[in-house]
Amino acid sequence: MAAQYQSPTQSPPRLLEPLPEAPYRRLVEIVGRENVYREPDDLLLYSYDSLLGVPAVWPQAVVRPGCTEEVVEVLRLAQKEKLSVVPRGAGTGLAGGAMPIQGGLVLSLNRMKTIREIDEDNMQAVVQPGVVTAEFHQAVEARGLFYPPDPGSMTISTLGGNVATSAGGLRGLKYGVTRDYVMGLEAVLMGGKRIRTGGRTFKNVTGYDLTRLLVGSEGTLAVITEIILKLIPIPEARRSLQLIYDDVDKAARTVSEVLRQRVIPATLEIMDRLTIQVVEDFAHVGLPREADAMLLVEVDGAEETVERQLVRVLEIARQEGAVDYKVARTEEEKIQIWNARRNSYGALARLSSTIITEDATVPRSRVPDMMRAIGEIARKYSVTMSTLGHAGDGNLHPTINADKNNPAEMARVEKAIEELFQTALRLGGTLSGEHGISLAKKRFMPLAFSEETLSVMRAIKTALDPDCLLNPGKIV
Amino acid sequence: MAAQYQSPTQSPPRLLEPLPEAPYRRLVEIVGRENVYREPDDLLLYSYDSLLGVPAVWPQAVVRPGCTEEVVEVLRLAQKEKLSVVPRGAGTGLAGGAMPIQGGLVLSLNRMKTIREIDEDNMQAVVQPGVVTAEFHQAVEARGLFYPPDPGSMTISTLGGNVATSAGGLRGLKYGVTRDYVMGLEAVLMGGKRIRTGGRTFKNVTGYDLTRLLVGSEGTLAVITEIILKLIPIPEARRSLQLIYDDVDKAARTVSEVLRQRVIPATLEIMDRLTIQVVEDFAHVGLPREADAMLLVEVDGAEETVERQLVRVLEIARQEGAVDYKVARTEEEKIQIWNARRNSYGALARLSSTIITEDATVPRSRVPDMMRAIGEIARKYSVTMSTLGHAGDGNLHPTINADKNNPAEMARVEKAIEELFQTALRLGGTLSGEHGISLAKKRFMPLAFSEETLSVMRAIKTALDPDCLLNPGKIV
Repeated sequence: MAAQYQSPTQSPPRLLEPLPEAPYRRLVEIVGRENVYREPDDLLLYSYDSLLGVPAVWPQAVVRPGCTEEVVEVLRLAQKEKLSVVPRGAGTGLAGGAMPIQGGLVLSLNRMKTIREIDEDNMQAVVQPGVVTAEFHQAVEARGLFYPPDPGSMTISTLGGNVATSAGGLRGLKYGVTRDYVMGLEAVLMGGKRIRTGGRTFKNVTGYDLTRLLVGSEGTLAVITEIILKLIPIPEARRSLQLIYDDVDKAARTVSEVLRQRVIPATLEIMDRLTIQVVEDFAHVGLPREADAMLLVEVDGAEETVERQLVRVLEIARQEGAVDYKVARTEEEKIQIWNARRNSYGALARLSSTIITEDATVPRSRVPDMMRAIGEIARKYSVTMSTLGHAGDGNLHPTINADKNNPAEMARVEKAIEELFQTALRLGGTLSGEHGISLAKKRFMPLAFSEETLSVMRAIKTALDPDCLLNPGKIV
Repeated sequence: MAAQYQSPTQSPPRLLEPLPEAPYRRLVEIVGRENVYREPDDLLLYSYDSLLGVPAVWPQAVVRPGCTEEVVEVLRLAQKEKLSVVPRGAGTGLAGGAMPIQGGLVLSLNRMKTIREIDEDNMQAVVQPGVVTAEFHQAVEARGLFYPPDPGSMTISTLGGNVATSAGGLRGLKYGVTRDYVMGLEAVLMGGKRIRTGGRTFKNVTGYDLTRLLVGSEGTLAVITEIILKLIPIPEARRSLQLIYDDVDKAARTVSEVLRQRVIPATLEIMDRLTIQVVEDFAHVGLPREADAMLLVEVDGAEETVERQLVRVLEIARQEGAVDYKVARTEEEKIQIWNARRNSYGALARLSSTIITEDATVPRSRVPDMMRAIGEIARKYSVTMSTLGHAGDGNLHPTINADKNNPAEMARVEKAIEELFQTALRLGGTLSGEHGISLAKKRFMPLAFSEETLSVMRAIKTALDPDCLLNPGKIV
């Protein structure tokens, strides 16, 4: 775990061994010379993702297939040559899922970026894995349809990466996560076996649910080459509001009460004092620096329902002691409210040489307990920890600022993180709500699952990839 | 397939070999003498489920564990003695999933029927597998919560059986199926390995999604011993209506147009001419015997939205040529509308010695094509086929009445069914929307999946149950 806090420069990426000529020539035959990279600059670039600090290893080559047939051929070659393969979308994952820790090949799916079909009548779409999430949002919204999953990195992230990690986002509370929108997949197993799972009907109980097994498997079971996604009608109306509190506990209680009264906002975000101050200093969006906490809420749905829900949320907020509020009256005001949230991570990252954003997730009624526990853990270990996150679905992101060159501080950070996980699990939560396990949390898996359950995961991995060549060393 | 049309009496159930004394004594130790059945009457009863006609085989014993620990011990014994085990809920499945075709033990989960917890704040429940679906509906609705899956057999079926088959129902269009409500499981693998999957948070990407792998696996991978179910707020308002057509094509076009205009009813059912006549003759609920088709619609949600949607559906129905309609004004009228649908299967079953209800499922825009194809196939093979089903989600139930003592007719029926599946698949559909594969459709799996995809399903089965003792001979 300590490794998580080293920057890539501390332990420079290294090439374990160069790719022999024979497989290189075969890769060139398969995808074309321009789509096999082996220059040091490229290998460096593809040696890490958005999990900072794990010592990076250079891949032996980066391969960029243009179609499923090429993926099949690459995985056939890889099996034959016993080369490990790490599938990669945009590399925005925070758990190290795209890091080639054993060298081998990085398989970049970015050239496969066609939206093959948007089927308005059946409200579904067929896409290749390299399609950028936000571009897909625009394409379906232009047709009056809606694809809810909106991970933080959606302007860069790819749908293939989203499926591989079952990416979440701000709208998870009402709309669920990527898993809830994947109807079917085309995928290629290590060795080149091409499979199709699920299909284009909403009801489907035809054999084992391989679709959901692959969703969230972080590139360790198969390479996803085509995705059938469910769409829904775009909400008629949306309203955004900001609620200000002088006590974070009152904000957390508002979250519980809103949900207890069966109002399900599309988005229900929390930011604590430190986050508010840092965002305001960075982005000057008019946040109240003296507030102890802020809630950002979006309600959506039918026009009349949205108005009613908005009023209800404001009433609850007043009862629970909100000191101020702002309802967005214009599109501009709405963008301003959400910019505060979208800028948080960037603003916090400026504070120190190291930033670690965690993914503690609890049942939503335990959000007040978890918020309190985060404050206590920060004090106990003297670490700078701010909290923002998706309060409505219990998915909090406590974020630690630290100095990687201060070993004493980093040791305290490590202990604080371990206690965060233990607390989340004790409150009925989980290790990861949306960032995934891969490298970052692999060693904590025994806290969450019994050895018997983990052995089932390992058995499935072995059944699909006996030589453990596909994204090795991740999850189990 | 021919086997499907033989009645149990044609080929009487038989005991392959009696259970030896040693394992019998061990079973008695584990669950108590009163919970091990081996009398012929009991063995006969547990030799079949609701798939009529497959030659039934008696189990060697029926075992009724009272808790997870007893399930563990039974599966440990079964592995040691190489006894096959067929988990069983209420035996209402239509695909033979609960039939002990190789003898062995039937493991009845009906004693494990406690609702352990209804967590209103987090809108989730923890239940044992033997809880009856409709009783669970009542329990959560008493708390203002809603569990949408409503399979036809819900007054008898169990939640464990629903999870094992990912049961659907009338509300699938708007609310999805059982799969969409299972958050976590406790399950026991053959050999007695006890696992926990998923959890109590809505966002959860902690390792492979074993939860969804087990959902719909029809008792072939594990015995489900505890279920965490997601609940949602109960809709504020519900309105039901009946639409009458002189042409089934107009009814099918209404379905497409309603959905195209982004109105998503909770339920959108179709009944064709024969079904209407038979139901009316049986139940005398005032259906128009001269109509060619009928749609039954329920819209639900916020009060004001429901009214608006009701008006919209009526407008579309008029445009598409509905000749009459009835909106339920009272609870009694509503019950009357839905009684027509709930009585259909029973009414049709009275028509002949054999009834076969199929499960052809297509993308919803293809419902008009599928309805036409069903009519053509019925004419082509001279079989009596009526159609009812969940038109809104493309899940149709063409139902065949035939005489099992007429071999020539049964041969035509068999051909008609095969052509039904081929047509559904050609239209982008699937083999089973909600009834499952188990025995009934196992031999059609190669029509739906490539050998490569099937080999992955087999690899998973082998990884979890190497000796193939858990519900053997089903799915793959």
